[in-house]
Amino acid sequence: MLRTHTCGELRLDHLNEKVTLSGWVQTVRDKGKIIWIDLRDRYGITQLVMEEGKTPTTLIDLARTLGREFVIQAVGTVNERAAKNDKIPTGNIEVSVTNLQVLNKAALPPFKIEDETDGGDDLRMKFRYLDLRRNLIRQNLILRHRLAKATRDYLDQLAFIEVETPVLIKSTPEGARDFLVPSRMNLGQFYALPQSPQTFKQLLMVAGFDRYYQIVKCFRDEDLRADRQPEFTQIDCEMSFVEQEDVLQTFEGLVKYLFKEIKGIEVADFPRMHYAEAMKYYGSDKPDTRFDMKFVELKNTERDLTSAKGFKVLDEAELVVGICAKGAASYSRKQLDTLTDFVKRPQIGAKGLIYVKYNTDSTFKSSVDKFYAPEDLKQWADAMDAQPGDLLLILSGKTQQVRKQLNELRLEVGSQLGLRDKQQFSCLWVVDFPLLEFDEETQRWHAMHHPFTSPKPEDIGLLASEPAKVKANAYDMVINGVEIGGGSIRIADETLQARLFELLGFSQEEAEAQFGFLMNAFKYGAPPHGGIAFGFDRLCAVLSGVDSIRDFIAFPKNNSGRDVMIESPATIDPSQIQELGIKLLPNKE
Amino acid sequence: MLRTHTCGELRLDHLNEKVTLSGWVQTVRDKGKIIWIDLRDRYGITQLVMEEGKTPTTLIDLARTLGREFVIQAVGTVNERAAKNDKIPTGNIEVSVTNLQVLNKAALPPFKIEDETDGGDDLRMKFRYLDLRRNLIRQNLILRHRLAKATRDYLDQLAFIEVETPVLIKSTPEGARDFLVPSRMNLGQFYALPQSPQTFKQLLMVAGFDRYYQIVKCFRDEDLRADRQPEFTQIDCEMSFVEQEDVLQTFEGLVKYLFKEIKGIEVADFPRMHYAEAMKYYGSDKPDTRFDMKFVELKNTERDLTSAKGFKVLDEAELVVGICAKGAASYSRKQLDTLTDFVKRPQIGAKGLIYVKYNTDSTFKSSVDKFYAPEDLKQWADAMDAQPGDLLLILSGKTQQVRKQLNELRLEVGSQLGLRDKQQFSCLWVVDFPLLEFDEETQRWHAMHHPFTSPKPEDIGLLASEPAKVKANAYDMVINGVEIGGGSIRIADETLQARLFELLGFSQEEAEAQFGFLMNAFKYGAPPHGGIAFGFDRLCAVLSGVDSIRDFIAFPKNNSGRDVMIESPATIDPSQIQELGIKLLPNKE
Repeated sequence: MLRTHTCGELRLDHLNEKVTLSGWVQTVRDKGKIIWIDLRDRYGITQLVMEEGKTPTTLIDLARTLGREFVIQAVGTVNERAAKNDKIPTGNIEVSVTNLQVLNKAALPPFKIEDETDGGDDLRMKFRYLDLRRNLIRQNLILRHRLAKATRDYLDQLAFIEVETPVLIKSTPEGARDFLVPSRMNLGQFYALPQSPQTFKQLLMVAGFDRYYQIVKCFRDEDLRADRQPEFTQIDCEMSFVEQEDVLQTFEGLVKYLFKEIKGIEVADFPRMHYAEAMKYYGSDKPDTRFDMKFVELKNTERDLTSAKGFKVLDEAELVVGICAKGAASYSRKQLDTLTDFVKRPQIGAKGLIYVKYNTDSTFKSSVDKFYAPEDLKQWADAMDAQPGDLLLILSGKTQQVRKQLNELRLEVGSQLGLRDKQQFSCLWVVDFPLLEFDEETQRWHAMHHPFTSPKPEDIGLLASEPAKVKANAYDMVINGVEIGGGSIRIADETLQARLFELLGFSQEEAEAQFGFLMNAFKYGAPPHGGIAFGFDRLCAVLSGVDSIRDFIAFPKNNSGRDVMIESPATIDPSQIQELGIKLLPNKE
Repeated sequence: MLRTHTCGELRLDHLNEKVTLSGWVQTVRDKGKIIWIDLRDRYGITQLVMEEGKTPTTLIDLARTLGREFVIQAVGTVNERAAKNDKIPTGNIEVSVTNLQVLNKAALPPFKIEDETDGGDDLRMKFRYLDLRRNLIRQNLILRHRLAKATRDYLDQLAFIEVETPVLIKSTPEGARDFLVPSRMNLGQFYALPQSPQTFKQLLMVAGFDRYYQIVKCFRDEDLRADRQPEFTQIDCEMSFVEQEDVLQTFEGLVKYLFKEIKGIEVADFPRMHYAEAMKYYGSDKPDTRFDMKFVELKNTERDLTSAKGFKVLDEAELVVGICAKGAASYSRKQLDTLTDFVKRPQIGAKGLIYVKYNTDSTFKSSVDKFYAPEDLKQWADAMDAQPGDLLLILSGKTQQVRKQLNELRLEVGSQLGLRDKQQFSCLWVVDFPLLEFDEETQRWHAMHHPFTSPKPEDIGLLASEPAKVKANAYDMVINGVEIGGGSIRIADETLQARLFELLGFSQEEAEAQFGFLMNAFKYGAPPHGGIAFGFDRLCAVLSGVDSIRDFIAFPKNNSGRDVMIESPATIDPSQIQELGIKLLPNKE
């Protein structure tokens, strides 16, 4: 080893020991008679010291040639520091250098290797190997490692077996777009990269594996958003002889264990929220429950506190629904205008925003004073459980749309009021999802989760008559408004599965071609089974209170699916293409 | 849960408890008044019993409809068995059924779900989910899981961090053929699937990660042999600030730990063997050292015990080399003919085989009695340390070829003499590999390991003058004649790396295009580093004493790279192809 200790290891216990350290030069402070070097490695920073008269002149001369990020090896004695630094664990000691060697030089990095770096996103991605030297990113990846390790420890204890499923599989048009791999040994045919190991894990249940998990790469050839990557990682799990409650208990246990092990936080039992409830009170199937601010409906099919006052917009609305922002009656005109602009952005698409200030002196000031008397507004305020000093924000329109819009507004206001503390965690299960949703565009039913999700037994009778009302044995785990995982109890019955495929518009031939092997497997004794998959990148980010997953991935791709560090994808040798039995389309050569 | 206990769990301790079990029907024995059912799950087999007069008739009737592999749930009471079965851990008890439910029916499986199955390879692969129900295969995959878990535990303790490297990377013509993935977002460009994360792990060292590992899928588009798969798994590791000895110690420690944890075997320190020694004494860089039978050279550049006796074949040979098969002088003419045929097979390619029987009465009988007197043969026997009763087997020819041939013969004879016990393990390191080998076909130097392997510092001077003599800081771990892992200390110096690329025939542009990002990274302070990669599939097989890796992979592909269960690769929708900016070559459509 080119070191006896790491740069994070030495303490007063080591006084007078002769040690060898290796690492990167973080800083050199040359005060003339004394030179201090901060030596950095993964484990920490240790101060080296060299002093004229004490340290050999050749070493001092050598030290003066060191630049940032040079790789050096230093031999020396551990001494107590005169001026201690209580900000770092090695801050009580320094190493008086008796030998020094440059292991490798370093050109000046294109940006500062510090928490607050001067490198822009593009530059940091191109030099990702330098970006990864930054404390912040390294800690993220260490956290990721620890989460993976703890996940495995927990599942291993519960007799789950990690089984690797294949990466070169078969394309299934259902779902997102697959990445394809031309086969050289089977010309004209293609493998696909898996979007998830869904069918394989179900086959493992048919195979009697009983409890399976895998931390596994999955792939989707989708147009990318900031928080999507073409390759991403799932904690993929499946269990046999279970009902929904067993899966919920097992994986609530996992996440509690992770919080405890990694964050030192005891998380309470997760509340369960029905899908319908989540939509009604939060306008989202992944509500952020760190704060309350539930939706209150002023006009719906059951009551109407807004009509017949001459305000056509609300008179014609299917739903009038609002939130009460506690203590926000002091919002300025400008702040309210900004909120109005926010909901009117095309991504959200509201026509406008109604506000009602319930002033601290119990008067009302609203954007609809023309139509509604203070008594009317008081009625709204009471319905919304508002107190003087609160601000009511109200949207109206078609039920589904307006709920989505108000969800966005609620999250924005929650952020503005500081109610979304990233170091506070609110976990829940959303349950009782509909099995199917009708797609207006294709005019057919789609599986809300996936086509293997089982309907609630009591709802099977509705499959033919009222498919929209059939609820599924499906569940999502939500933390701080982010969907961390989702799963379902699967269909284990060949006949029911065939019926579902039919309902989803698969011809018998299509179902056979795509999922024949699975339906065939079900003929030979499939156990009742169900499972869940967690988005591992996102889990890392949420536990760290970070929005983007990118800095939890060592070598991420940009929004064009490119790795700008290795310059991939790239053009390849024409002979490689030809060998695959394909050619580029004329304008792509 | 649809069970209170697993089928491997109940003991006499559970007597009189009311339990619920779920599983598959292994067998039904209907003796008229009594029906026994063997119920199987991953954890074991439990005997259920139903008795006329005691068990409700409806249940007995139901039991009579059960077929093999039906999935059932049984409720009952744990009783002591009259006739105990000491072959299974649950053999002291049985469960008297009070309730029975069929969870799923099963068609008759196409082969027997037993250790000794009647299913052929193809059939078992097509119905792999049934094959996986067999005890043998399930145990293999459980072993694989345990090996992976133990590997992670060991490396985690030594502060290694598991980092996921990308799967969608860039093609590098060096090495085997890549699988390619056309990019839809970057038309005309391709990703490649990694043959190993080599460059990424080196970048992680540049990034200061210090100790990295990953259990990771790798891909090679090669024509397949029985023990190769297009996708395979590596335990991939890298360390910074280390020398060769540190890597050897660390990973010898890993394998010892795995033997101890998984097999309960204490393995002694691994001997080190020089590459030159391995070639000279075993004709292989992965010698099977479970048995001795070292090569003895009868004629080489230093001595000659075979020439000038009128036998032209040996007179003209560059090398005459033999092995001594202890106690095999009794081999029959037929056995010797079979061995001769064995070495003359085209895969081995020897012209013939010389045998010398050193009979128990101290006489000699050889295939070259015409040329060599008993005194000559006695001289050979003495050189080969033979005793009466031994058989000498001798080959001759060009040094490299004849060593390879004799290696094959040695292994064959070792097998015949029962010297290759699969439950005995002989581990070693082969070290001091040549850095380069000259390829006659392309008339250029190739890297014996890979182009990032560092030469021994003392040999760098020879790079220009005598490249063949340059030894590498490279090492292979060999167990029972199988190369389990290999690695090297890498080049951390940009200039030396550029020089190597040049020697390997890369133009500066080619080197830049393929490895520019790595050479660029080395400019910014690369630490000395090195590592190793283990073939995980093979490690599983060797530890189990099995030759083929296929049954340690849940869903393997056949020799045409096909998964016959899911029928992959497959033709895909033409629109999917077009979207990728490619088309099939005319005769492939």
